[in-house]
Amino acid sequence: MDAQADVEVAVAYHSGYGHTKRQARAVAAGARQATGASAVLYDVTELSEELWEGLAQADAIIFGTPTYMGSQSSVFQAFAEASGAVWAAQGWKDKVAAGFTNSAGVNGDKLNVLTSLSLLAAQHGMHWVSLGLPPGWLYSSTGSVEDLNRLGGFVGAMAQSPSDAAASAAPSEADLRTAEHLGRRVAEVAVQLRHGAALLVHQ
Amino acid sequence: MDAQADVEVAVAYHSGYGHTKRQARAVAAGARQATGASAVLYDVTELSEELWEGLAQADAIIFGTPTYMGSQSSVFQAFAEASGAVWAAQGWKDKVAAGFTNSAGVNGDKLNVLTSLSLLAAQHGMHWVSLGLPPGWLYSSTGSVEDLNRLGGFVGAMAQSPSDAAASAAPSEADLRTAEHLGRRVAEVAVQLRHGAALLVHQ
Amino acid sequence: MDAQADVEVAVAYHSGYGHTKRQARAVAAGARQATGASAVLYDVTELSEELWEGLAQADAIIFGTPTYMGSQSSVFQAFAEASGAVWAAQGWKDKVAAGFTNSAGVNGDKLNVLTSLSLLAAQHGMHWVSLGLPPGWLYSSTGSVEDLNRLGGFVGAMAQSPSDAAASAAPSEADLRTAEHLGRRVAEVAVQLRHGAALLVHQ
Amino acid sequence: MDAQADVEVAVAYHSGYGHTKRQARAVAAGARQATGASAVLYDVTELSEELWEGLAQADAIIFGTPTYMGSQSSVFQAFAEASGAVWAAQGWKDKVAAGFTNSAGVNGDKLNVLTSLSLLAAQHGMHWVSLGLPPGWLYSSTGSVEDLNRLGGFVGAMAQSPSDAAASAAPSEADLRTAEHLGRRVAEVAVQLRHGAALLVHQ
Repeated sequence: MDAQADVEVAVAYHSGYGHTKRQARAVAAGARQATGASAVLYDVTELSEELWEGLAQADAIIFGTPTYMGSQSSVFQAFAEASGAVWAAQGWKDKVAAGFTNSAGVNGDKLNVLTSLSLLAAQHGMHWVSLGLPPGWLYSSTGSVEDLNRLGGFVGAMAQSPSDAAASAAPSEADLRTAEHLGRRVAEVAVQLRHGAALLVHQ
Repeated sequence: MDAQADVEVAVAYHSGYGHTKRQARAVAAGARQATGASAVLYDVTELSEELWEGLAQADAIIFGTPTYMGSQSSVFQAFAEASGAVWAAQGWKDKVAAGFTNSAGVNGDKLNVLTSLSLLAAQHGMHWVSLGLPPGWLYSSTGSVEDLNRLGGFVGAMAQSPSDAAASAAPSEADLRTAEHLGRRVAEVAVQLRHGAALLVHQ
Repeated sequence: MDAQADVEVAVAYHSGYGHTKRQARAVAAGARQATGASAVLYDVTELSEELWEGLAQADAIIFGTPTYMGSQSSVFQAFAEASGAVWAAQGWKDKVAAGFTNSAGVNGDKLNVLTSLSLLAAQHGMHWVSLGLPPGWLYSSTGSVEDLNRLGGFVGAMAQSPSDAAASAAPSEADLRTAEHLGRRVAEVAVQLRHGAALLVHQ
Repeated sequence: MDAQADVEVAVAYHSGYGHTKRQARAVAAGARQATGASAVLYDVTELSEELWEGLAQADAIIFGTPTYMGSQSSVFQAFAEASGAVWAAQGWKDKVAAGFTNSAGVNGDKLNVLTSLSLLAAQHGMHWVSLGLPPGWLYSSTGSVEDLNRLGGFVGAMAQSPSDAAASAAPSEADLRTAEHLGRRVAEVAVQLRHGAALLVHQ
């Protein structure tokens, strides 16, 4: 492990209609804002060698999926299942993890998906980084739909895309900035852990 | 069990600042709209004999609590714990159950509270009645903050009260009508089960 | 709706290696023990017309899936996603629902799967029937691995199959009897609701 | 922040009958095994100044509670609620967090408690450290009730104490060693993060 090299943040996502993909890009853009971090997007629809190698190298993996009927998408879940081979060797142990999801409803059981992503990470022995933002849109006097974390998520980043909005129109800027915040925060924690590990080795 | 007598719906709730109390009243009002049903409100702050006797008689118990730091309130949880004595005798077995919660954030981990209420009901061997409404506020073209089930809950009724809104101003009418819907639905299922049981007995 | 005809219980399951299939058969066998109920098993691997028609006719749907990496299997989730078309028309509204799951670990996040199944049912507006059994294997003096509900589930039926046990050897008899209990209970509630509905119609 | 001083791990727990207290002590003992870490036990029954000051200073807070009726105890929840004052100032942001729970049942909804503890931590913007152990007791040939992580938890440490077992007799050695493992792991991550932060400051 080279403390000088960039920390790598992998964004492992599935997107059904493009909305979650926009959220994933915002997460990756946020990760790249952190000093000493790079980010790569992986669409988990194809379970390629490149995917598994990329995730094996990454310092952090941020999981993203739409919420379909209250749970992660079946495409994402097929990826999660296939990660069982990595799990058997505890190949992702001690990596950093986080999660994000998008759905049409304001709540729509998004929390169940974020919790399920955190359980996936826990099975892999990963460290889970929370969103780290207070809830927005909280006060009738000063709150706004344009607030960061307007949906009030904590375990991960939530986004909402109305059923009749194309991926060019949703999620909203507020939700994308929230996703960006998560990416940057995860990258910063990964950098901090990398530096700490390097110091421990040199003691 | 008298198939002619009114089905009794108990609304067992805690409210910290009055918002959840308004939601509870709406749930009870909805229950009373069902033919053949009556409803009683129980504030679970005081664990009185009257409370336990009322719940023992009820055909349905609808649990309500604010969401505090992601979970039900400690006052509500003290009630849930004390229900362990009823649990030991499976005194609420086969009663109908449902739940509702209010918090300041749009999501704010409300789903975790509704899920926890459904687990409480399951430990008691009760039947859980879902909200039974499609999500509102779903379309950018036609959706509105005034839609029934605007928050997109399914396991129970969700309400939101901004941090700076008095109980006279929140929850919103839409959230109160959603609560009312839950109460009526629970009462109707309880009536149906009561009639079904009477018929089974007479076979 | 004919109050004289048998109530139909559909068991909609996926099984990866045969263990959950044995659990599904036990659930169906239990349902058939109820007076006035029949049961049909549906493997949801193939999303056929027969499947959707069978579920449309059923009075109760019991969902079953292995727990893989903390969540339902991707095959089951593909079925859940596809049920979105039914959801849009609220085609399963007011049907009875329940759930079961099997995994190798004693806990192994099985509760997350049962909770996710109950959320799926709630999105469909279904009524959730809990296991209705006290936990077994609870006392060091008298508890036994052969107790009904030895794993201590409440929201649904849990089973455990050791990683090196063939489907002929696992789940255990205790877990299969627990599954059977769930099936019978669900069928009885469905019969009760059917009778109640018939009486309401004739009023 | 002094990179040379010991990292402080606070174990903030409630115990009803002494079983969870033994688990808490094992967690603290594990934390003290890590190089450069000390640990303090806080019984959250009394919400004293000493408690809040101790937690404010801590690098990591490990939350522990019995599972009562499917959720954390009301005493623990009163503490969680009171932490809302800290939350408003985000006083625990970026601290390390983890959790453990004990109940009589093998499952008994313990996962719901660990998930709720992780949501509490996420609201505070803390980093959640998973158990980091594969499940034990998994193979019929080689598995044993004496395995580390015999209950198969991942998000935190689970323990089981039979209903008729005094705190002197339960939780089992296996469950206490699992708790110890969690404590040590959390302390090591906290040390790593502390070192990493120090290095970042000196760049």
